[in-house]
Amino acid sequence: MEQKLFELLDQGYDEMVEIRRYLHQYPELSFEEEETPAYIAEYHRKLGHTVHTGVGGRGVTARLEGGKPGPVIALRADFDALPIQEETGLSFASKHDGVMHACGHDGHTAEMLVLAKALNELQDELSGTILFIHQHAEELAPGGAAAMIEDGCLDDVDVIFGTHLWATVPYGVMQYKDGPMMAAADRFEIDIIGQGGHGATPHLTKDAIVIGSQLVTTIQQLVSRRIDPQESAVVSVGSFEAANAFNVIADQARLVGTVRTFNNEVRDTIEQELNRMTKAACDSAGAEADFRYFRGYPAVENHAREAEFLASCAAEVPGVTETEYMKPQMTGEDFAYYLHHVKGSYFFTGAAHPDWETPYPHHHPKFDIDERAILLAAKILGKAVIDYEPA
Amino acid sequence: MEQKLFELLDQGYDEMVEIRRYLHQYPELSFEEEETPAYIAEYHRKLGHTVHTGVGGRGVTARLEGGKPGPVIALRADFDALPIQEETGLSFASKHDGVMHACGHDGHTAEMLVLAKALNELQDELSGTILFIHQHAEELAPGGAAAMIEDGCLDDVDVIFGTHLWATVPYGVMQYKDGPMMAAADRFEIDIIGQGGHGATPHLTKDAIVIGSQLVTTIQQLVSRRIDPQESAVVSVGSFEAANAFNVIADQARLVGTVRTFNNEVRDTIEQELNRMTKAACDSAGAEADFRYFRGYPAVENHAREAEFLASCAAEVPGVTETEYMKPQMTGEDFAYYLHHVKGSYFFTGAAHPDWETPYPHHHPKFDIDERAILLAAKILGKAVIDYEPA
Amino acid sequence: MEQKLFELLDQGYDEMVEIRRYLHQYPELSFEEEETPAYIAEYHRKLGHTVHTGVGGRGVTARLEGGKPGPVIALRADFDALPIQEETGLSFASKHDGVMHACGHDGHTAEMLVLAKALNELQDELSGTILFIHQHAEELAPGGAAAMIEDGCLDDVDVIFGTHLWATVPYGVMQYKDGPMMAAADRFEIDIIGQGGHGATPHLTKDAIVIGSQLVTTIQQLVSRRIDPQESAVVSVGSFEAANAFNVIADQARLVGTVRTFNNEVRDTIEQELNRMTKAACDSAGAEADFRYFRGYPAVENHAREAEFLASCAAEVPGVTETEYMKPQMTGEDFAYYLHHVKGSYFFTGAAHPDWETPYPHHHPKFDIDERAILLAAKILGKAVIDYEPA
Amino acid sequence: MEQKLFELLDQGYDEMVEIRRYLHQYPELSFEEEETPAYIAEYHRKLGHTVHTGVGGRGVTARLEGGKPGPVIALRADFDALPIQEETGLSFASKHDGVMHACGHDGHTAEMLVLAKALNELQDELSGTILFIHQHAEELAPGGAAAMIEDGCLDDVDVIFGTHLWATVPYGVMQYKDGPMMAAADRFEIDIIGQGGHGATPHLTKDAIVIGSQLVTTIQQLVSRRIDPQESAVVSVGSFEAANAFNVIADQARLVGTVRTFNNEVRDTIEQELNRMTKAACDSAGAEADFRYFRGYPAVENHAREAEFLASCAAEVPGVTETEYMKPQMTGEDFAYYLHHVKGSYFFTGAAHPDWETPYPHHHPKFDIDERAILLAAKILGKAVIDYEPA
Repeated sequence: MEQKLFELLDQGYDEMVEIRRYLHQYPELSFEEEETPAYIAEYHRKLGHTVHTGVGGRGVTARLEGGKPGPVIALRADFDALPIQEETGLSFASKHDGVMHACGHDGHTAEMLVLAKALNELQDELSGTILFIHQHAEELAPGGAAAMIEDGCLDDVDVIFGTHLWATVPYGVMQYKDGPMMAAADRFEIDIIGQGGHGATPHLTKDAIVIGSQLVTTIQQLVSRRIDPQESAVVSVGSFEAANAFNVIADQARLVGTVRTFNNEVRDTIEQELNRMTKAACDSAGAEADFRYFRGYPAVENHAREAEFLASCAAEVPGVTETEYMKPQMTGEDFAYYLHHVKGSYFFTGAAHPDWETPYPHHHPKFDIDERAILLAAKILGKAVIDYEPA
Repeated sequence: MEQKLFELLDQGYDEMVEIRRYLHQYPELSFEEEETPAYIAEYHRKLGHTVHTGVGGRGVTARLEGGKPGPVIALRADFDALPIQEETGLSFASKHDGVMHACGHDGHTAEMLVLAKALNELQDELSGTILFIHQHAEELAPGGAAAMIEDGCLDDVDVIFGTHLWATVPYGVMQYKDGPMMAAADRFEIDIIGQGGHGATPHLTKDAIVIGSQLVTTIQQLVSRRIDPQESAVVSVGSFEAANAFNVIADQARLVGTVRTFNNEVRDTIEQELNRMTKAACDSAGAEADFRYFRGYPAVENHAREAEFLASCAAEVPGVTETEYMKPQMTGEDFAYYLHHVKGSYFFTGAAHPDWETPYPHHHPKFDIDERAILLAAKILGKAVIDYEPA
Repeated sequence: MEQKLFELLDQGYDEMVEIRRYLHQYPELSFEEEETPAYIAEYHRKLGHTVHTGVGGRGVTARLEGGKPGPVIALRADFDALPIQEETGLSFASKHDGVMHACGHDGHTAEMLVLAKALNELQDELSGTILFIHQHAEELAPGGAAAMIEDGCLDDVDVIFGTHLWATVPYGVMQYKDGPMMAAADRFEIDIIGQGGHGATPHLTKDAIVIGSQLVTTIQQLVSRRIDPQESAVVSVGSFEAANAFNVIADQARLVGTVRTFNNEVRDTIEQELNRMTKAACDSAGAEADFRYFRGYPAVENHAREAEFLASCAAEVPGVTETEYMKPQMTGEDFAYYLHHVKGSYFFTGAAHPDWETPYPHHHPKFDIDERAILLAAKILGKAVIDYEPA
Repeated sequence: MEQKLFELLDQGYDEMVEIRRYLHQYPELSFEEEETPAYIAEYHRKLGHTVHTGVGGRGVTARLEGGKPGPVIALRADFDALPIQEETGLSFASKHDGVMHACGHDGHTAEMLVLAKALNELQDELSGTILFIHQHAEELAPGGAAAMIEDGCLDDVDVIFGTHLWATVPYGVMQYKDGPMMAAADRFEIDIIGQGGHGATPHLTKDAIVIGSQLVTTIQQLVSRRIDPQESAVVSVGSFEAANAFNVIADQARLVGTVRTFNNEVRDTIEQELNRMTKAACDSAGAEADFRYFRGYPAVENHAREAEFLASCAAEVPGVTETEYMKPQMTGEDFAYYLHHVKGSYFFTGAAHPDWETPYPHHHPKFDIDERAILLAAKILGKAVIDYEPA
């Protein structure tokens, strides 16, 4: 069956490219997707799959029942785009001003639709059920995954797989990892509310710039002193806003930053200690603090058996030249939520553009991929669907 | 003669008010004064004084030769206004949108013109020469004083006196001080040029916010550790600009601030040490610094004998209820330059508005004065002209 | 009478030197004085003065009633020595191991005894009463002054005068000042109680060195941000103790330092803000603080009329070449307490050793004075006694 | 052969305990070992092994040629003790005052000697050569390993294995890891040479405590900003020495600390950046720095194939209940040097004392082990010798 699947996918490659390029021209922003989910739903309906739309808002699921009994296996592809003005100069560049598929979700969708068609042809031989989860709004917290789960998309699912086409990993390389693979990415905002005044009379003020500066230096201790050196964590203040005339003393300063972690205990510690440090820095000068912490997606934590399984599948896919145990990435993904509910694993499919020595990274206006990677991704996921057996 | 002068000034009080209110309606910004110097020149010409206009740009001088030999005594009044939208609601409020005499220079001019007229009537009895220096552009560095001096206005002058109507000192009080009276007010700008990057990869960046914050905390040592505790000095960072997205690391940060000193050695030390600290903070992280220091007016340093002399004159002026030895003020004044060339002293004439418990400060849109203070100022300066004898 | 007094003092100069050198050989530590007060009491008894010993502990007072009515004028001289091993090599060097008159109190006592003898001879002509206050324990807080006052030594006193022989001021110069003349000198001790551990596991500790270091940098803001720039204040951390093995994390750190102020409000602010900063720095890391603040002597604040009066007396003393209005000194003196109860003033009598270009400062093992200054001090104080009239 | 080896070792267990307890009574400090290497050499000589003494100073090697061709396999055991006063109260406690086998090296030696005897009995069946490396001075940098290697001990060796009895890991557990297993542990010393003075005159000084404190806060950025968040590193200042009187300003401060890393690039970066930060902190105040960095042992980095091989050996040893993939340890080991020259791997043999809930850690005066672990260690290493085949 594997051989037949690979042949069907090879035959479907042109369609993958066609779909990907079509979607690339008509990108839609997170939580504003309309045409894309309609297009996806229509495609599955034509194949005779059981389709649900509006899942968790704008998500689409399609169900293919195999001819033999077996587990329910979910595959997930996201389909939203980004508020970026495309600068690729491609013939199929975005026709929507200021919106661009700059993260490869067009490829994810194309790969999954054609894979669905191929599996559909193998329906009688398939064991179990395949659930295609087309997710909206991956790019914008709170994301579509949590809402789709809430709406029941995982209700009878046994395992879930997914992949990201990765523009900085060479074509042919499949990257996998058990445990933490992508980081939890949180945001914090701190308003320091001091008391302004004339630059010549500091004793009548509570200098918000001095308080904020002291806090920024103290924050360095979060990673250096408060976190187990064997854990990874980053706390960066990306913005310090206190623009005033030169001869005044600032009444307010705003610090905004990001926290990246792989471990919930570490994440909790950082939130708590950051809050404590903020309060103390303001107390030290009799000022007030307004501390706000926004949790983004949690860390993607793959299940070990499924992560290894995907690597073993990939190793047998023609065209995959290497399966690489990767370091965890500091970027985030709401695939994380699915893994809180069912077993599964996420992986990266190398898609570095063949013409570039240093590829443009994701979210760059000139981002592009090696389209052949779409086919590899489809084959790895397809083989996983065929081979997977629950423990 | 003193008695006669006081009488003439009492008689001239209505004219003082009239002139002050007229000028108040037609304020002109620093370095843009046209009508005001013309008005002043015309007034002196009518009195027969030797008038020079365009002195150092837009300044006016008028010379009155006394009937007897004696020193050349200069009196200085400034005449520019501020870029402030008046909110006093006065009947004679500014008719120039966004421009206001919010510092009392209208009163300074009115006082000096009517004093000139009174002294003119006493010409025969006067010993020596009186030079009326009407200065433009006191409010905006580099100011008019230095240019007028450069242009020769002090060339044969022996001594100079001047006063500021002071809105937060009660009417009737004359404030004086020998030595430092008003501060040197400098400005600095520091650009920290680090290297930006993604918030999750600090090791690939030079975090300008962290460097800037460390520098702000270090700057506190300037006053606490580098300056003689018996000297007054202030260093305030008024602005910290590094506004970015939350999940990046800042490539640049700009700090802008003010330095106030009364002593040139202290001023030099601060400029030098601030530069050194900036360089070191950037070196510490391998970043670059662009340090810029702009000297404003130097400190007003009164000559001791002339300061005491003015206090003794004031003590004998009817209506002056107190002559008070004042603390130095942290604000600046380009009267400072005159005192680098000739002997002299500056003083404050209390002009707190009688109706207000807490007067609006200088440069406030609701700033106003007790007009009777104009008369007191004229009498003190007039008595000084009559009584002054060189050492 | 003045002329006669000066003659008597000139004749007494050899005795002054003799007494000073005798006392110099037998110095006694603060609160341990035995021979010195006995010697002083005996001297006054021989003159027929009313003597009290054990005043406030070890102090001595002697009373000389003049022949005419007048105010009660107190003169104060301190007589304790320091725990310093003398290294002067003088023929009359200390015979008490490790104890030295390294601050000139031997001279103060010699001057006052011989002055008492001279005034005694003029008893009939004197108006009022003279109270000679010989104070113990000036060098060691809480000092002898407060206890002597408590014990009634100022009970009927109208005014008090005193002087310090000052080794870094040239002979012939008398220094005076109204208002703050010598600083309040306080001490603080801060124990930071963190949690120790292995140097490789910071997350299991509360690093007392990091907390202490942050606190030291924050303390710089006390002077730079919390105190009026026109006030003088110093806060110095003199000691940072956290000596450990290199591969541990410190559980405790001790900071000890000094605070110098001239103004009680400033002093209160610093104590309060230092406490607040300490607490906040420890809170920031979840550590505990033990903050202790010890007030030393308050600032010496001279009464203006008496300060000016002393200067005018000195100006007429032969040998005084200059009366100089001095800057306030950052050192302390418990003469401060007397001035809280009665009018009076303190002054410096220049006593720089004639042989040295740079004199050894007070409390130095090689400290010495120009003995002729003892005579000048006696004359200034003597003239003050004769001339003083209450307001 | 494996079965026979295990039987021989079981029979030798009593001798292992006897040897371990004997050595425990006569511990010798690093670089001062005399009796111990003599004892070891004698033991091997009796077995007929080729023995070298004085290898790299005080090391001993013994060579056992197997009856069949094969690789040269080295086993390493260290034999030095620590400058600790034993407090165990054991019947076989140390008889050398202030010296103690508080790290288990007595057990390492006992295990290897009896293993050598057992393998000797199997000589004819053995393939290849076994080199027993008894190393002196593991506890004290620069250690004995580097010198023994320099002296040729690894010259024809193909692979090396070694183990540490680990008192905080339960008996029965074998811990292994590929790649970084134990940290590089470096030391730094920083002298800040400022300029001292009186606590009241900071402007005449360069305050070493303020400079040192600023440096400690800056050092926090090493881990938080300069190192890849996916790498482990620790920088701890363990000692801050600047103890002085309260009313002075410190002329010097000494910071001493430790750096732990697993990666040479990270190690280089930290040394370089720490030096740079130190220099900048001193430059900032015009002070001088004396920066000294002492590299300890490098990180122990196991070869992946050999690490896995040891785990597979251990899994088949009766009594081993678990083979655990461990986290890297922040402590150091000079076994690291051997792995720079030949393939090999180090592992931990769980030896937690059965009577204690919380075992005393290594280097504690009450440190003790479960002696049965010696037998397990011998079996794992013995099986490794029998089974190892080069790649």
